[in-house]
Amino acid sequence: MNINEIIKAKRDCQELTTEQIEFFIKEYSYGNIADYQASSLLMAIYLNGMSEKEILDLTIAMSKSGDILDLSQIEGIKVDKHSTGGIGDKVTIVVMPLVASLGVPVAKMSGRGLGYTQGTIDKLDSIPGFRTNLELDEFIRNVRKIGISLMGQSENIALADKKLYALRDVTGTVESIPLIASSVMSKKIAAGADKILLEVTCGSGAFMETEIRARKLAETMVKIGNMAGKETIAVVTNMNQPLGRFCGNALEVKEAIDVLSGKGEPDVVEVCCVLGAYMLKMAGKGDNIVTNMRLIQNQIDNGEGLNKFKELIQRQWGDSRVIDEPEMITTAKYKIPVEAKASGYVSAIEAKNIGQAVVNIGGGRFKKEDEIDYAVGIEVLKKIGDTVEKGEPILYIHANDEFKAKAQISFLENSYTIVPEKVEKIKEILDIIE
Amino acid sequence: MNINEIIKAKRDCQELTTEQIEFFIKEYSYGNIADYQASSLLMAIYLNGMSEKEILDLTIAMSKSGDILDLSQIEGIKVDKHSTGGIGDKVTIVVMPLVASLGVPVAKMSGRGLGYTQGTIDKLDSIPGFRTNLELDEFIRNVRKIGISLMGQSENIALADKKLYALRDVTGTVESIPLIASSVMSKKIAAGADKILLEVTCGSGAFMETEIRARKLAETMVKIGNMAGKETIAVVTNMNQPLGRFCGNALEVKEAIDVLSGKGEPDVVEVCCVLGAYMLKMAGKGDNIVTNMRLIQNQIDNGEGLNKFKELIQRQWGDSRVIDEPEMITTAKYKIPVEAKASGYVSAIEAKNIGQAVVNIGGGRFKKEDEIDYAVGIEVLKKIGDTVEKGEPILYIHANDEFKAKAQISFLENSYTIVPEKVEKIKEILDIIE
Repeated sequence: MNINEIIKAKRDCQELTTEQIEFFIKEYSYGNIADYQASSLLMAIYLNGMSEKEILDLTIAMSKSGDILDLSQIEGIKVDKHSTGGIGDKVTIVVMPLVASLGVPVAKMSGRGLGYTQGTIDKLDSIPGFRTNLELDEFIRNVRKIGISLMGQSENIALADKKLYALRDVTGTVESIPLIASSVMSKKIAAGADKILLEVTCGSGAFMETEIRARKLAETMVKIGNMAGKETIAVVTNMNQPLGRFCGNALEVKEAIDVLSGKGEPDVVEVCCVLGAYMLKMAGKGDNIVTNMRLIQNQIDNGEGLNKFKELIQRQWGDSRVIDEPEMITTAKYKIPVEAKASGYVSAIEAKNIGQAVVNIGGGRFKKEDEIDYAVGIEVLKKIGDTVEKGEPILYIHANDEFKAKAQISFLENSYTIVPEKVEKIKEILDIIE
Repeated sequence: MNINEIIKAKRDCQELTTEQIEFFIKEYSYGNIADYQASSLLMAIYLNGMSEKEILDLTIAMSKSGDILDLSQIEGIKVDKHSTGGIGDKVTIVVMPLVASLGVPVAKMSGRGLGYTQGTIDKLDSIPGFRTNLELDEFIRNVRKIGISLMGQSENIALADKKLYALRDVTGTVESIPLIASSVMSKKIAAGADKILLEVTCGSGAFMETEIRARKLAETMVKIGNMAGKETIAVVTNMNQPLGRFCGNALEVKEAIDVLSGKGEPDVVEVCCVLGAYMLKMAGKGDNIVTNMRLIQNQIDNGEGLNKFKELIQRQWGDSRVIDEPEMITTAKYKIPVEAKASGYVSAIEAKNIGQAVVNIGGGRFKKEDEIDYAVGIEVLKKIGDTVEKGEPILYIHANDEFKAKAQISFLENSYTIVPEKVEKIKEILDIIE
């Protein structure tokens, strides 16, 4: 077997065999296949696609290319949750304590942010003292003790995926459903959970801009997960505008505390309740989604979710006084308004631009090594369907560098489309794929 | 401008601009674009194709990436000839002296062999003393003096093509018409001739296996050449079996001498007469192809072509006694028959296998650095349409290593298909594209 034959087979639209895919992943991991050969194959995959069998084989091969976590010491059904990334998406921080407070074991690994999306781990790192770089032992001990732990994703998970992802980023082969699906699912499978709940975002702030592509990605991942023996469900959510009110690390943690305190924006609450309800179902806590959503809402209303979050912060060495005094979390110096350029109704928001502006003012990373300013971010005052008056603030930029912040104003102003006719508000949940 | 955008544009089937193509070739030559990005773009080109304008831009950009030869010191219309490669294709060695003997200036750079095809320069190098590594001055001086010179292709011609060709070879992107056409034409344009005559081979011994692909390649190159201001004509020839009787360096030189002496196999003579006739036409020596063919045949019959070849050998320091005593050229020790496996008619020959067997016994190169045994090769006794008796020799292997030669026997036996029904002989000239 040699890589040239494998490239030619995919180029000529042949289905790759399990052995060919395993060979590619193994030899590429070992450095026996050059990047220029891998990128040629990736482009052939991008353009010619992959069958479900091939995607499954690729997923499994990549999941085996690094450590596979053993969570068997944790009792109960472990359900992992993954989002394909969004703007202002603090759902993980809200949902995990809520379901943990109902007895679902939460052993969650999360990633850091890169590009225009922020990562859960960066957000949690903004809590004074909070540690996310745990050893596996401590992680498992936490879950056994308090029912929940969150940690940064191990460097050794799905190593081939890491190497391929970096290559895809510079060779025009990122936006391929087979490659995205196998990348996500290989990490989830290696992360050791029993079941997987996916939040597949779509719209102007998501990887998948159209609903058709998002649904296709969701269907592909659900199939692959189930074929790999891990029950998988996907919730397709609307990311044509930021979720909730804030984008930025500390700002999102504060908003998560608000949501858990019963003061959340309706869109975040809805998404959290739906995702929470499916997690309960998958964990064997009840099949009726409407009932489950009520159970989740109840944990917000009675403060149990917030308590669980407090417990998590304490357990992971954070200062849990932030729960009652969120202002203890770092705050930016400046709050600079971005104003509406016209009167009318907001009809569209380039949500990616808002995520990008957060990065531009220091709240995210251009490169992996970049330091983050946790305090900065963007507050979203107006969403699709809202009325605005010309000159009225639509966003606030929370910034520590006034110059950098002001440089974003016209970029952000132009990210809003305002029309004279009335516009409907958008639906948050677009589809459930089981 | 950045390479990622260029890759994505081609991936998404957009036409690349002249500036994008120039940027790619320039920055790739300078090492500012990584091989893994170039290979991703090459695969996108392979799968999505290129417009004529893009191919022209790529050709011109590559031709400018190295030296451009100035042949203006040579009077008259310089017509270059190029073959896309074949088995036993000694046409250049025969045609060049023939047209030179009719006053057409021949300043011909040729390549060495790699893989299953042998190169003209290797073949000439088998003549004792003959030098092909000339300086440009000497090359031009020879043409001015005796009307003909042949030399090895300059290392500095179309440097980007050289780098890209090596990359294509290991990334499954060789057999792409836009990439082949621009590779060939960039070198021809940089080599300084006024007009270009192409021999596009097709069949089991050629790069292009089907006539449709060969014709498409020929049409593309003719268009590109004309668009670049160099009149270009292509002759599509049949390479479903070796051309003539011998394959191998010294053996082919001996056969070329035979052809120039009027003792050639009809298929080689026909191809040489047609190609020669078009060279005469392009050089302004007469528009009637039938008349031109007669002129060429006449130069065989009256020995003028052979005399010109002798003059060329003398001029380039070779031992011209080989013209009268071809046995002075190196000869292999063994002559081992390959026998027909059945009685009947030869219906097909895997001509590539014959080229490959020559390499396997030492007559060609696996890698660029390999040394060549000029003496070895294969003699073709039976061609398509011939009758054979089971056990009758169909080929002779001329070898110096008996063991290696015998290892080729069953491979070669199986390269012949023999059927009971009568089979027609094949046509040599399939099409002329002007």
